[in-house]
Amino acid sequence: MESSRAVYFFGDGVADGDGSMKELLGGKGAGLAEMTKLGLPVPPGFTITTAECIRFYDEGRTLRPQLKEQALEALSRVESVLGRKFGDPDNPLLVSVRSGARASMPGMMDTVLNLGLNDDTVRALITQTDNPRFGWDSYRRFIQMFGDVVLEVPHADFEAILDGKKRERGVRLDTELTADDLEQVTRSYRERVRQVTGRDFPVDAQEQLWTAISAVFGSWYNDRAFSYRRLNRIPHDWGTAANVQAMVFGNMGEDCATGVAFTRDPSTGENHFYGEYLTNAQGEDVVAGIRTPHPLTRQQKGDDGQRSLEEEMPEIYSELVGYREKLERHYKDMQDLEFTMERGKLWMLQTRAGKRTGAAALRIATDMWREKLVDEAAALLLVDPDRHLDQLLHPMIDPKADATPLAQGLNASPGAATGEIVFSAAAAVAAGEEGRHVVLVRTETSPEDIEGMSAARAILTSRGGRTSHAAVVARGMGKVCVAGCGALQVDSSARTATFTTTNGPRVLHEGDRLTIDGTNGFVFEGVVPTVEPELSEDYELLMGWADTHRRLGVRTNADTPHDSETARRFGAEGIGLCRTEHMFFGEERLPWVRKMILARDESERREALARLKPMQRSDFEGIFDAMDGLPVTIRLLDPPLHEFVPHSREEAEALARELDMQSDDVWNRSESLREMNPMLGHRGARLGITFPEIYEMQAEAIFEAADACRKRGGHPVPEIMLPLIGISEEFRRLRALVLRVAEETLGAEQEGLSFLIGTMIEVPRAAIVADRIAEDAEFFSFGTNDLTQLVFGYSRDDSGVFLPHYVEQGITPRDPFQSIDREGVGAMVRMGTERGRAANPKLKVGICGEHGGDPASVGFFHACALDYVSCSPYRVPIARLAAAQAAVRAT
Amino acid sequence: MESSRAVYFFGDGVADGDGSMKELLGGKGAGLAEMTKLGLPVPPGFTITTAECIRFYDEGRTLRPQLKEQALEALSRVESVLGRKFGDPDNPLLVSVRSGARASMPGMMDTVLNLGLNDDTVRALITQTDNPRFGWDSYRRFIQMFGDVVLEVPHADFEAILDGKKRERGVRLDTELTADDLEQVTRSYRERVRQVTGRDFPVDAQEQLWTAISAVFGSWYNDRAFSYRRLNRIPHDWGTAANVQAMVFGNMGEDCATGVAFTRDPSTGENHFYGEYLTNAQGEDVVAGIRTPHPLTRQQKGDDGQRSLEEEMPEIYSELVGYREKLERHYKDMQDLEFTMERGKLWMLQTRAGKRTGAAALRIATDMWREKLVDEAAALLLVDPDRHLDQLLHPMIDPKADATPLAQGLNASPGAATGEIVFSAAAAVAAGEEGRHVVLVRTETSPEDIEGMSAARAILTSRGGRTSHAAVVARGMGKVCVAGCGALQVDSSARTATFTTTNGPRVLHEGDRLTIDGTNGFVFEGVVPTVEPELSEDYELLMGWADTHRRLGVRTNADTPHDSETARRFGAEGIGLCRTEHMFFGEERLPWVRKMILARDESERREALARLKPMQRSDFEGIFDAMDGLPVTIRLLDPPLHEFVPHSREEAEALARELDMQSDDVWNRSESLREMNPMLGHRGARLGITFPEIYEMQAEAIFEAADACRKRGGHPVPEIMLPLIGISEEFRRLRALVLRVAEETLGAEQEGLSFLIGTMIEVPRAAIVADRIAEDAEFFSFGTNDLTQLVFGYSRDDSGVFLPHYVEQGITPRDPFQSIDREGVGAMVRMGTERGRAANPKLKVGICGEHGGDPASVGFFHACALDYVSCSPYRVPIARLAAAQAAVRAT
Repeated sequence: MESSRAVYFFGDGVADGDGSMKELLGGKGAGLAEMTKLGLPVPPGFTITTAECIRFYDEGRTLRPQLKEQALEALSRVESVLGRKFGDPDNPLLVSVRSGARASMPGMMDTVLNLGLNDDTVRALITQTDNPRFGWDSYRRFIQMFGDVVLEVPHADFEAILDGKKRERGVRLDTELTADDLEQVTRSYRERVRQVTGRDFPVDAQEQLWTAISAVFGSWYNDRAFSYRRLNRIPHDWGTAANVQAMVFGNMGEDCATGVAFTRDPSTGENHFYGEYLTNAQGEDVVAGIRTPHPLTRQQKGDDGQRSLEEEMPEIYSELVGYREKLERHYKDMQDLEFTMERGKLWMLQTRAGKRTGAAALRIATDMWREKLVDEAAALLLVDPDRHLDQLLHPMIDPKADATPLAQGLNASPGAATGEIVFSAAAAVAAGEEGRHVVLVRTETSPEDIEGMSAARAILTSRGGRTSHAAVVARGMGKVCVAGCGALQVDSSARTATFTTTNGPRVLHEGDRLTIDGTNGFVFEGVVPTVEPELSEDYELLMGWADTHRRLGVRTNADTPHDSETARRFGAEGIGLCRTEHMFFGEERLPWVRKMILARDESERREALARLKPMQRSDFEGIFDAMDGLPVTIRLLDPPLHEFVPHSREEAEALARELDMQSDDVWNRSESLREMNPMLGHRGARLGITFPEIYEMQAEAIFEAADACRKRGGHPVPEIMLPLIGISEEFRRLRALVLRVAEETLGAEQEGLSFLIGTMIEVPRAAIVADRIAEDAEFFSFGTNDLTQLVFGYSRDDSGVFLPHYVEQGITPRDPFQSIDREGVGAMVRMGTERGRAANPKLKVGICGEHGGDPASVGFFHACALDYVSCSPYRVPIARLAAAQAAVRAT
Repeated sequence: MESSRAVYFFGDGVADGDGSMKELLGGKGAGLAEMTKLGLPVPPGFTITTAECIRFYDEGRTLRPQLKEQALEALSRVESVLGRKFGDPDNPLLVSVRSGARASMPGMMDTVLNLGLNDDTVRALITQTDNPRFGWDSYRRFIQMFGDVVLEVPHADFEAILDGKKRERGVRLDTELTADDLEQVTRSYRERVRQVTGRDFPVDAQEQLWTAISAVFGSWYNDRAFSYRRLNRIPHDWGTAANVQAMVFGNMGEDCATGVAFTRDPSTGENHFYGEYLTNAQGEDVVAGIRTPHPLTRQQKGDDGQRSLEEEMPEIYSELVGYREKLERHYKDMQDLEFTMERGKLWMLQTRAGKRTGAAALRIATDMWREKLVDEAAALLLVDPDRHLDQLLHPMIDPKADATPLAQGLNASPGAATGEIVFSAAAAVAAGEEGRHVVLVRTETSPEDIEGMSAARAILTSRGGRTSHAAVVARGMGKVCVAGCGALQVDSSARTATFTTTNGPRVLHEGDRLTIDGTNGFVFEGVVPTVEPELSEDYELLMGWADTHRRLGVRTNADTPHDSETARRFGAEGIGLCRTEHMFFGEERLPWVRKMILARDESERREALARLKPMQRSDFEGIFDAMDGLPVTIRLLDPPLHEFVPHSREEAEALARELDMQSDDVWNRSESLREMNPMLGHRGARLGITFPEIYEMQAEAIFEAADACRKRGGHPVPEIMLPLIGISEEFRRLRALVLRVAEETLGAEQEGLSFLIGTMIEVPRAAIVADRIAEDAEFFSFGTNDLTQLVFGYSRDDSGVFLPHYVEQGITPRDPFQSIDREGVGAMVRMGTERGRAANPKLKVGICGEHGGDPASVGFFHACALDYVSCSPYRVPIARLAAAQAAVRAT
């Protein structure tokens, strides 16, 4: 049985798995298998499947015997490839145990290196390498890592011992410690482990292996991994794979190195090999940002005189360039590589799709198409609508701004943002909850800071490269980031950020403002103006493909001519939702709206409506002009009337004076409009039925505006939308009202104007009886906000008390107001669409809730065969790309 | 094409239609056809179908030519049966035109008699009858009726002319006017018609016929018919048939009579022929209650010396008795007959199922079964659960009450009720809206009073018999009614009711209280205590059949031991909904509930919960005892917590003193719990997820109570119900919580206690993902109240502003909170049931919303194959009968 196969071997050119098996082997495991098959030099090893991780939890956090059997069998294959034996005191095999989930979760889970070392094998290592310092340093690192990760001995305990030794020896760097020093450190480490855990450090290699595998599986549910998944919408039930792989060492001496590389520049997307490496170091040293690494290529070199790998080790470099080309051609995507050189031999440790900025994604997609590496469809899939495209639409520093930077660092994640300085993730979260904009300023960031980074507008670090934690995470989040700003000294406890400038030190405090330019790596004091980005030709190229490939139309939700114009510039093909009530709130309008609502009888109400009509008409004219030739879906008045009336006695008194009414009358009438559950109250079509004169006025204004536009040569295309319909008869009557007004307003002119009458589907009942409604309706537009409220029974205003808790606890995989709940709300959308079309095959069907701008939801709406989605103007390009991707993926 | 057949002839022993065609021919038309076929003497005529009525409205209130053709053809068949010609000046055929809908709507629509009379034909009538007074009286009546009904000349105008003539002649009764007087009256009538309408009274018989048919069709939408349909849930789109039938006259002289009869006593159900008649009168004279009619049988005679038909005309009576038996045997139901004797010949004018009291319905059903006229199943269908059975459960005057009646009238509709006197329908409606109990006191009632009668608890009239409008309508509504109370004089304008008593006149005023005993016909001054009725053996017999035939279980919604006992007496087979929050409102509990809610942390909350637990436990023990051996479905806490906290500063201050807290803390915490839309807020399962300790306490109390009951020999069967579940994972977690508590509370004792864990299905999403929930749930109970709120998006608290309007306007056929909306909410019930059972075939499915006690809804739930319905204790018998009827109808 395939499902009971727990272990997949790879090594020496053969592999049980391959690159397509990410679900089972995780990204790392699938990549290792694929690279092995491609003939790249990969240290042999094996992957324990994600299914085993789930089983591990199902069985009370234990590894089943079959798994251990299979692992030992695979281990013996590794041993025979390398001619070493795991735990052998003379010729020991050392391994790493690494997590590897289906989706990349950098640094979130545990890793153990140098596993298999003990007092015997360390001596064999020393003998074999003839390098006592390396042997004791490896052992020291193993105990520290295993102790921290597996045995839960505080990291700081080990740091204190190491620092103590350095102080004792009067040295500053780890590398200045001798083999003897390090041997003493390992003893102190093991003593500390015994004190904390009450047990000896495990010396049996197999025991080390099983506990390390358990720890890696167990780290799937550690706090930061959990929180990362939540932020990145990764299901908790995926589990992680565990990769056990023979160790190769980048830290055996000066003929050793370790590095990471991107096959193209992850910031700009330029087709240049791009990376960093450190000689005589292990991989963690690069990623952690503790030593500043050297550049990979000559081209990439800065002015600091660091030598590149290309210059230092041209043969290794050229071998690496070969792999770069092979992997890109194979994966047809930019790859993020990890490599290690052990005594002059290059080993590939990882390949995966590289994270990149929006600009880079765009550049890579269009370049690869130009290079004929991918076709349009594949190129479209290389740009993530939500992260990449959204970034491109981010603001930049206004080029006309005459600002001098305080300092410069690495341009780690593009865009520009201003905020108050905070020095901790917690402070960032707290400020975010208060709605304040902050810049998180840190020496370096670590996985514990994820939530704080998410809450900040920008991140600034004093240490670390473009592949440091801060840079990788910020790019993934689309946050502005400047990393490795050497002129900056951060004192978190004093809460000061000190910049070394040509004018001397400049000390800033918590709460002071900074503007961060992540595109260029600049840091400015105070507020610097920003502007919208210019969209490049590559952007136009990509969006052109998107428009060719997508089947879904994309409209916008806009209530003003200005928003309509913006949206049209972004490619909106009409308005999917124009909310007329927003027009009621203008300063000169509200008094008349209130007069209309507080009217004692129909004639008073009609008088007030007559005053409002010209204003509505001119609104509609402006919108028709902005959307000339494109459909404009206008929703008639929807909210309950009490939204417009005074909410305090004082307001009521002022209004009474203004309207020349009795204050008590105003107040009592206002009070009588209050509702227990306004969401479920007297609104939408219910207003239209009980106060037909309101909808009559609005319909008149629409038809008069359309007529006026047409008479001056325009092409208005109104689509009149009745909100909150739940009963077919409700729709029938209000449609008759609108048709009557059309007849009365336009008379014979009606012929020249094509307009539709349709409804929002936002009440569950409307989806159920969609066939009945569609007998008369010409279009449906799903109002998924309200539909979500009603299908779940969640008030958007009140669910804040429990819904975040639900998402956090994994009771619901994501906030259904952000991304459509396919199983529940989505089922209603599908049902309404199918039933509506069955009764009326010409029915046009769209969606105008917030979900119209969410790429995952757009994919679902494509699958439901809707005609269009409608979203806010700035989300229009995102929806266009998401729609194209859905179409491409479906073929 | 059958559908284009507009006219169905009947007469002389043959008929185009039959009794099964009520939908097309209406009740009256189907009855006439069937009686004709049975060989009963029915005046020939024809029925114009209900479909023509609909067509009439579709075509702008006009009669289509094909209809007229077919009518004229049928008319000529009538002419040839009788040897008379319509409109012939020498030998004229006169006809009546009467409405007749599918369901009986007594007096709601229009009727025209004596149609075909004009200045020529009246003379032929006089010649043929040799009775000038009859001729002119007929003509006078025709003009008056046609003028009023068809030409819309005010009724009062005609009355004024007639009264003027009587004054002029110094007489009191119509019958005292001479032929000459009446001839002059007809002239004045026609003059008045010309003045009001500006046109001559139509003399052409065909013109009379078409306008009369149009008027009858048109009366389908008059106000009172509309309102009657609304009250009686008769669809507006049924339309009415029109019956055109040869006139027979009960008013040609002393050998003429007209009457109405019930084949059994409509008040008691006794197997006695029962009716009333008037000699020398037309039918309207009986129904209108203007002359007090004579009894049909000797047995029925009172002490007032009136002679019965049995004594006066024994041959006619015996012929009528023959028809009575024939019709009852044929229809297998009590019939309501209309007959007329013209010059010694008996004609049957109508047969239909007779309206009856609850007691009569029960008696008739069981008697007919004893007589072997019907089997159990048919007998069950003879009792209407809502009207008849409900009446039987009405209160009666306490036999121990020592009250002397103020007066006695006819026991027109049973039950006893107390209320303030009002003198108009409008006053009754107004008082009803204020929630006051009133007795409507009138000389007589008319169809305009329908709404007022509906709003009153009892009706008292000074005139009219048991078949008068007041009596018929009151029985139909299940209202208490005493009619024809001769000792009463009503002065509506002075608003006084004067009773002639042995102690002299007693004058009561509006607002004074009366107690009406409709079972015995007594009127009491003031408040007389009432008691629940004893349920008869017939009741037990019927309910026994119901229990044999029904498939649906019937449970009750009960929160206390007392309610549980009542419901069990009424036949409840368990509790379908025990709301635990009601237990939180007790005086000694509320402070602890509030302390629990306002707790600063979990430990304070747990402390308060610990105080509440013994109280909950003792509640549950009481309920388990009352329902020993039967399932008790306990819903864990459902309402939002703010329902329990102070709603004003003053309350908050008092509570703060009581709880030894800061007043501001209490107030702020209370305020923070307020919600915009509490219906969609933090309640139900959401409380259970966020404050698990509350559900833990409740589960502990349940298990401890069950354990205690069991230990003293009881058989508690708890079914724990989780409210407001929308997500399968929500259910899974809370179920795990309850199971854990069971384990902790009961330990090994668990084995001995069988309990279920299930959920309410009240959120639309729960119905959609019912299959997922049913994987773990053992039962579903549809909470159709909340489900209706969410499927429609109607807040029950706020929909009062528009929902009555929707029902009134026919936008929705009925209030969906009263009777289940099959198309929308019902579809969700069906979907949830099917999906749930598909995933878990053993799933038990019930419903515990208000709809559980509504017979129409119960029928639907039977069709959905639910396992049980649950309703309030007093509705249990109604649900049992409704469930049996649904089962019988389905076979």
